[in-house]
Amino acid sequence: MSAAIRVAPTAATRATSLLRTVQFTHPPNCPCHSNPGYHHRHARPQVERYAQRTRETGKRGFASPLDPAQQKEYAFEMAASSIRFGPGVTQEVGMDFANMGAKRVCLVTDSTVRQLTAVKQAEEALSREGIEYEIFDKVRVEPKDSSIKEAIAFAKPYNADAFLAVGGGSVIDTAKLMNLYTEYPDADFLDFVNAPLGKGRPIDKKLKPLVAIPTTAGTGSETTGTAIFDLVAKKAKTGIAHRNLKPTLGICDPLNTKTMPAAVKASSGLDVLFHSLESWTAIPFNERTPRPTNPILRPAYQGANPISDIFSLNALRATVKYLPRSVRDPEDFEAQNEMLLAATLAGVGFGNAGVHLCHGMSYPISGQNPGYKHAGYEVTSPIIPHGVTVAVTAPAVFRFTAPSNPDRHLAAAEAFGVDITNVKREDAGEVLGEAVAKFLADLGDQPNGLKGLGFTNGDIENLVEGTIPQARVLMLAPGLAKELEHERDQLRRLFENSMTHW
Amino acid sequence: MSAAIRVAPTAATRATSLLRTVQFTHPPNCPCHSNPGYHHRHARPQVERYAQRTRETGKRGFASPLDPAQQKEYAFEMAASSIRFGPGVTQEVGMDFANMGAKRVCLVTDSTVRQLTAVKQAEEALSREGIEYEIFDKVRVEPKDSSIKEAIAFAKPYNADAFLAVGGGSVIDTAKLMNLYTEYPDADFLDFVNAPLGKGRPIDKKLKPLVAIPTTAGTGSETTGTAIFDLVAKKAKTGIAHRNLKPTLGICDPLNTKTMPAAVKASSGLDVLFHSLESWTAIPFNERTPRPTNPILRPAYQGANPISDIFSLNALRATVKYLPRSVRDPEDFEAQNEMLLAATLAGVGFGNAGVHLCHGMSYPISGQNPGYKHAGYEVTSPIIPHGVTVAVTAPAVFRFTAPSNPDRHLAAAEAFGVDITNVKREDAGEVLGEAVAKFLADLGDQPNGLKGLGFTNGDIENLVEGTIPQARVLMLAPGLAKELEHERDQLRRLFENSMTHW
Repeated sequence: MSAAIRVAPTAATRATSLLRTVQFTHPPNCPCHSNPGYHHRHARPQVERYAQRTRETGKRGFASPLDPAQQKEYAFEMAASSIRFGPGVTQEVGMDFANMGAKRVCLVTDSTVRQLTAVKQAEEALSREGIEYEIFDKVRVEPKDSSIKEAIAFAKPYNADAFLAVGGGSVIDTAKLMNLYTEYPDADFLDFVNAPLGKGRPIDKKLKPLVAIPTTAGTGSETTGTAIFDLVAKKAKTGIAHRNLKPTLGICDPLNTKTMPAAVKASSGLDVLFHSLESWTAIPFNERTPRPTNPILRPAYQGANPISDIFSLNALRATVKYLPRSVRDPEDFEAQNEMLLAATLAGVGFGNAGVHLCHGMSYPISGQNPGYKHAGYEVTSPIIPHGVTVAVTAPAVFRFTAPSNPDRHLAAAEAFGVDITNVKREDAGEVLGEAVAKFLADLGDQPNGLKGLGFTNGDIENLVEGTIPQARVLMLAPGLAKELEHERDQLRRLFENSMTHW
Repeated sequence: MSAAIRVAPTAATRATSLLRTVQFTHPPNCPCHSNPGYHHRHARPQVERYAQRTRETGKRGFASPLDPAQQKEYAFEMAASSIRFGPGVTQEVGMDFANMGAKRVCLVTDSTVRQLTAVKQAEEALSREGIEYEIFDKVRVEPKDSSIKEAIAFAKPYNADAFLAVGGGSVIDTAKLMNLYTEYPDADFLDFVNAPLGKGRPIDKKLKPLVAIPTTAGTGSETTGTAIFDLVAKKAKTGIAHRNLKPTLGICDPLNTKTMPAAVKASSGLDVLFHSLESWTAIPFNERTPRPTNPILRPAYQGANPISDIFSLNALRATVKYLPRSVRDPEDFEAQNEMLLAATLAGVGFGNAGVHLCHGMSYPISGQNPGYKHAGYEVTSPIIPHGVTVAVTAPAVFRFTAPSNPDRHLAAAEAFGVDITNVKREDAGEVLGEAVAKFLADLGDQPNGLKGLGFTNGDIENLVEGTIPQARVLMLAPGLAKELEHERDQLRRLFENSMTHW
């Protein structure tokens, strides 16, 4: 958890309930609590004016007498990339760059995707418009800071006036960071990395246009301002997240996802499922603290809100319906189309609300893999696909979060096809947990809990310690304690309860 | 109807059904059909390359042997302004401009709104950040080309580096056009106006940042790329519509809509209702012709699509629930909040799908007002509020459109609270038409059809002729004939059936 939300209660908190009403209060005294470690360049003068008014009037300078770190959020913001969706639409991308006036494009991909039609179509589209481009195809799947730095080193001298990412989440995320750090050539890599591992500096410049063409139906990265990677020195998965990092345009072409093997369809689809379910059940935006003192500091992962809810619930229903069909039948193009759309909708949902425990706990599971190789992945070294690491704790997670908002968890169970007419609210967690476990078991080839991945009870302490740094998502987990030892206990129990599910 | 969709069928249409399959075809021969009257600067080289390849190979240069004007659309695009929502959030707007690096802001409003707290809050927010601004408060409600030209003449010498619109749809639309024409100082006013009245030139430059703060819960203009006005010389309501016209950010602050009188709440809420219902029932995007040859030519009003559907249906349900409450009880802040949110959601819906007959027929109703003064509007000259002009034909419209898609019309009836369990599909129109009429009657102070506004059967021919130029929306009306005399007959009957509703 970030330092900001651990500030000890002061006398001022007694007045906090006043603020539950809708009245806005002026920017309060210290803007730094909202993003530990970073003093925003525009926030400082407010503090000075506040102090001055206080001296002049003998009263507090602004309307609110409260510590901002204690104040809850009162607003939410929805931002998403433009999305174009249609079979074959990849071939329009050259015209898009021509329309933007781009002349030198950096095409980002990985060595596997480079062999696929998607990249060939994109290259043809660029050539048809006479647009110069250079390909960087060394993106690492599950990027590390080192692989991202390598990509940035490629991009800097090429001096592209636009970026094109063709691939899965790793490719799109890497392209986002190539775009970011070429625009801030003197920045330290940690400047923009999420606090507390990095400095959480907000992105206050307009980046170059980035068009993202996903080749999996999973990540939703084509619509979000998030980029995830391993920070090797800290042994942690972290990322950079800011609205201004989001692509200009996501081009969703179902012809590009047809080639996914069934196992990849399943695991990337599980990512979609839990993007939806976690953003739907995240704490509400107006329960998040602190209230940002400048809108640029309002996190993209802001908690569930009325607009993200619409996306998340729709994506959840679609995934429950179409993921099993798309995994089972490679000729079911309707199901594939719908899964690509669901991935993008879920991207808008979690991109404006956030994810929580399944994702937070997934990072140490992936990093501490005891040697599991997922069926259907033709690899020489052990791998637990991201979607599988997320899904493996899910039945326990939603049993844990349900008491925070039983109605939402019941609605989710209903999306899984459960008849909730006579289910009691106190049984919401049990019912949803069971529905999720059944869905995973029925999908096929999924590990039965952490044991199925080769973890034992002896691994739990390390898994817990690997989860603790995921402050950005853990702060959105309903019911998770803010006190560190209590939080450790809760996480320990969640891992224990994830050992087997059926 | 535009010339493009009236092209007589050729032999090539026999092959069109092949294209119903998902396969993309390369840009075909003439890019102009997609936007009559405008040859796009990037499209021309494709035509030349096409001709050259045809000469060289003896075969048609691109994959498709079909006339593009006959091809149906295969993709859709969703674009929306970022939206920030919260009570009091107006006060953040100065920081937004500071974050963008804007130093000179043109604040656009009208003389009525200028007296309200919203403008004062915005001014304070700009001053607090030391941002220079100038106010243009001469926006005309229901703008004319002349009032817009006056606004542009104000904006040009001021040379703002960003725009701020505070007001209803007229204000936000005028600000969009001030932004557009200061960026294209040498353009003729008609260049960008929708075909066939104007040249329908697409906007291919990035405009200056525009932040829109709505003070009504109606227009949704804060999220759309559309601006509507009267083209006086042509006696027609028309507009300019392109994604690149959309505001950078819509700031939706429920404190700004609290002051609307009940009558304004009702009529602006009716606009929301029919933005939702028309976009939900518009023809599907993949039934629209022609297929654009360049993505910049893809209209924002593209027909119903899977993403607009989500917004439209949600906004419809919310409006049915909260509009009557918000009109009846000035203290019902929950209903006011929800209506502001619904207006914005409906804006995203129709902004990416379009509206059809209610809006298309509303423009001559407003222009040919026989002298009606709406209750609750304190004006000296006659006025039919926009939402009322839209609503007054609605029962007849949805009876007419229902056979195109009975299931969607039944779902809409269900949103109005009708139990559709045993309703036959062929009764969908009757059931929805009746539900809409009942909703209007129950809302109170609504005219009972065109007669209630003072129109007689003798006015119908002029109303029909005034509707015909609304090609951009009529092309999205399901069931409307493409043949002009047939279309006239249908419109005539719709006006006749709108004389009284209860």
